Amino acid sequence: MTAIDAAIQLVRNNRDRYLDEYKEFLSIPSISTLSQHKPDMQRAAEWVAAQLRGMGLDHVQILPTGGHPVVYADWLHTPGKPTILVYGHYDVQPVDPVNEWVSGPFEPTIRGDDLYARGASDMKGQVHAHLKATEAMLQTGTLGVNLKYLIEGEEEIGSPHLEAFIVEQAALLRCDVALNNDSNILKPDLPSIVYGLRGLAYFELQVQGPTHDLHSGMFGGAVHNPAQVLCELIAGMHDREGSVTLPGYYDKVRTLTPEERAELARTPYGEAEILKASGAPQLAGETGYTPTERIGARPTLEVNGLLSGFTGEGSKTVLPARAMAKISMRLVPQQDPEEVHSQLNAYLEQHAPPSVTWELRNLVHGPAIIVERDSGPTRAAAAALKTVFGTDPVFTLQGGSVPIVSMIKDRLGVDSVLLGFGLQDDNIHGPNEKQHLPNYFRGIESYIHFMANMAAG
Amino acid sequence: MTAIDAAIQLVRNNRDRYLDEYKEFLSIPSISTLSQHKPDMQRAAEWVAAQLRGMGLDHVQILPTGGHPVVYADWLHTPGKPTILVYGHYDVQPVDPVNEWVSGPFEPTIRGDDLYARGASDMKGQVHAHLKATEAMLQTGTLGVNLKYLIEGEEEIGSPHLEAFIVEQAALLRCDVALNNDSNILKPDLPSIVYGLRGLAYFELQVQGPTHDLHSGMFGGAVHNPAQVLCELIAGMHDREGSVTLPGYYDKVRTLTPEERAELARTPYGEAEILKASGAPQLAGETGYTPTERIGARPTLEVNGLLSGFTGEGSKTVLPARAMAKISMRLVPQQDPEEVHSQLNAYLEQHAPPSVTWELRNLVHGPAIIVERDSGPTRAAAAALKTVFGTDPVFTLQGGSVPIVSMIKDRLGVDSVLLGFGLQDDNIHGPNEKQHLPNYFRGIESYIHFMANMAAG
Repeated sequence: MTAIDAAIQLVRNNRDRYLDEYKEFLSIPSISTLSQHKPDMQRAAEWVAAQLRGMGLDHVQILPTGGHPVVYADWLHTPGKPTILVYGHYDVQPVDPVNEWVSGPFEPTIRGDDLYARGASDMKGQVHAHLKATEAMLQTGTLGVNLKYLIEGEEEIGSPHLEAFIVEQAALLRCDVALNNDSNILKPDLPSIVYGLRGLAYFELQVQGPTHDLHSGMFGGAVHNPAQVLCELIAGMHDREGSVTLPGYYDKVRTLTPEERAELARTPYGEAEILKASGAPQLAGETGYTPTERIGARPTLEVNGLLSGFTGEGSKTVLPARAMAKISMRLVPQQDPEEVHSQLNAYLEQHAPPSVTWELRNLVHGPAIIVERDSGPTRAAAAALKTVFGTDPVFTLQGGSVPIVSMIKDRLGVDSVLLGFGLQDDNIHGPNEKQHLPNYFRGIESYIHFMANMAAG
Repeated sequence: MTAIDAAIQLVRNNRDRYLDEYKEFLSIPSISTLSQHKPDMQRAAEWVAAQLRGMGLDHVQILPTGGHPVVYADWLHTPGKPTILVYGHYDVQPVDPVNEWVSGPFEPTIRGDDLYARGASDMKGQVHAHLKATEAMLQTGTLGVNLKYLIEGEEEIGSPHLEAFIVEQAALLRCDVALNNDSNILKPDLPSIVYGLRGLAYFELQVQGPTHDLHSGMFGGAVHNPAQVLCELIAGMHDREGSVTLPGYYDKVRTLTPEERAELARTPYGEAEILKASGAPQLAGETGYTPTERIGARPTLEVNGLLSGFTGEGSKTVLPARAMAKISMRLVPQQDPEEVHSQLNAYLEQHAPPSVTWELRNLVHGPAIIVERDSGPTRAAAAALKTVFGTDPVFTLQGGSVPIVSMIKDRLGVDSVLLGFGLQDDNIHGPNEKQHLPNYFRGIESYIHFMANMAAG
């Protein structure tokens, strides 16, 4: 039995305890975007810090930022070996529509092979799996790399204070590579490594017509309805081919090469899987691209929310004073979120009628990233996945956005390995979020092998 | 001093008491569309019944319907004289957005010459003014007509049970003419009589894409966003000229004659007044028509509400499962609400993409009406207004809808006189609804003169 085998065996003997802890973590409603959950954010940070202290890490601290705090800890007892910065987040998305959850979002419940709770997959499960991997290696004396943990509380609101924190704490955070577990594998038995992520630019658009809600009979026809204007503005943001019409939107979007398209076509997650996971009656999207290309390699524009006028039961004949939309774009490499902001502004200036006023707020933004595939850490990750899953991982482009990856590259000068164990159908921002438990446990073992491979060099 | 002078004098001596009662009526939150206000609906009905009993009316009853009850009372002690059916409603609109009210919607507050509260103008003020007119005539022995009161509780939700009630109680409700005070005058010192009202067809449209909310990064681009689809469907309902595009929508709309346009152009309420009352930066609407024509004589299509996805503070990168719009049309004479329903259905069948499903619910409908201007009751009303305001009333087309007028015509065979004392800028379905108090008192006196004129024949 090798030293690593001892750590793996320990993990297998402690599954029930890990699961109890994991559920405890999930029961804290750490929703970063809602101010009434501020005390829960503190509780979640303290919970993570207590775990790190219990495992025997050094310098465990809850460090303030301009918003929710960062949890930091390190273990630097193998001089000469690589130092890995483990990034994670302890905050979660809101839970609405809450009445569509089968069990309470903060009452973790196992059904079949899955654990259901907000954050189960995104990403308390991934954070906790790595903590348990490190704990097992420390308990068996097999940890052969240096570790620094940076677990933030604002990822789900776009990490607005993280860049300043990293700049300030650059010396503390110095490392050879980052490990970011905020990602997915393709299918339960098919491991994958994400090498590209779309960027994000998220806006709130307010359209104001009259100064106050009006009677639709007494004013309708003569006063422009801001809900109608908002719909017309949004409708004009796509053309009949499903392309985004903002001026200059595709100027920096690189044409896919035949080789890239061929590789994307081999991704074993396409139309059938997307239809099944979404439940949509039929797929749609930009003409001339496959569903896989549309999600991984093309930029998009989505309406994330709409609100105007009367939305309760029954009827109210109101001509609303204002209408609001949350609108976001997923960006591909070379697209600059600031430029996209200007493009949306230009579109609105060109198309909004003088019978309304409007205001555009930029809530979140981060560029797309591509990770080097042929590097030591990526090879260490691929080998770890092969050992645990028994099959070579697929390299994929992910539609989601992890702005932190480009932030760490810019500010600390290191690449990130993306090595999470969520699944595409985990409902991570909707009701009934889940984590496939067999992969939570495989995740722990994969992290152990990854750290062992990194130590072996 | 004539007998009528005594009633008028009594009114002038009792203004403080009337105001106290009026405020008491307004403090009952009788919002018919919200089920949690059901007990308040009963309280409001009982309040009206108690008033009628206190005035000395006969057969005061709270009669059940399939929904909120109707208050009925009569006074039939002048055989041979006309019988007037006084229609009113004790229910009010919802109060959202509640944070825009300067004083609480159910805490009646006087500022300047206005009384602010939900229902102050629409239409508890008008109901109460008529009650006080009758009370003063009874107290001075000057009431010379027969009266029947029908005060319903479902006008603001489209009177869904009133037609069945009228059919059932046709014998009880038999009358020579109806008086409907659910209307406005043009300006504080300029009386007017509404002779035409637009009809209403009110719908809720639900568009469903995926079965559950999705992560916009993991699915965006390949799964059609139902909020975007809803916006595109709504945007397509008007063309660039501001006309409604539903197939056949204008087929039965009569072209305005030059004479009608000339008369509408004389209405002393036009662009400047609408701009001021609405606070809109600029008016808009159907090309080729004046604002007065657009409101009074042309059909419209309005978005009354929009709801989809995440609408809280901050950002949530959700691809929503569904999107909802409340959509209503104001109809002109000859347009059939059922046909309009079919036209909207046909439009959706033609334009909704196969990547979503949709459902259309018809919530409320009623046709437009035109009232005979040269009739005894209308002349009695015009003379009453001239006496009280000192100026001849203007005859107007109102943009709002009072489906009850056509219902009474169809089921009881009588016309309605529209004689309310609200103002166009009373914010009747928005925050800070008000009633101009000088006109509440002039209203009481006008009703006294109207009833006296009707008695004189």
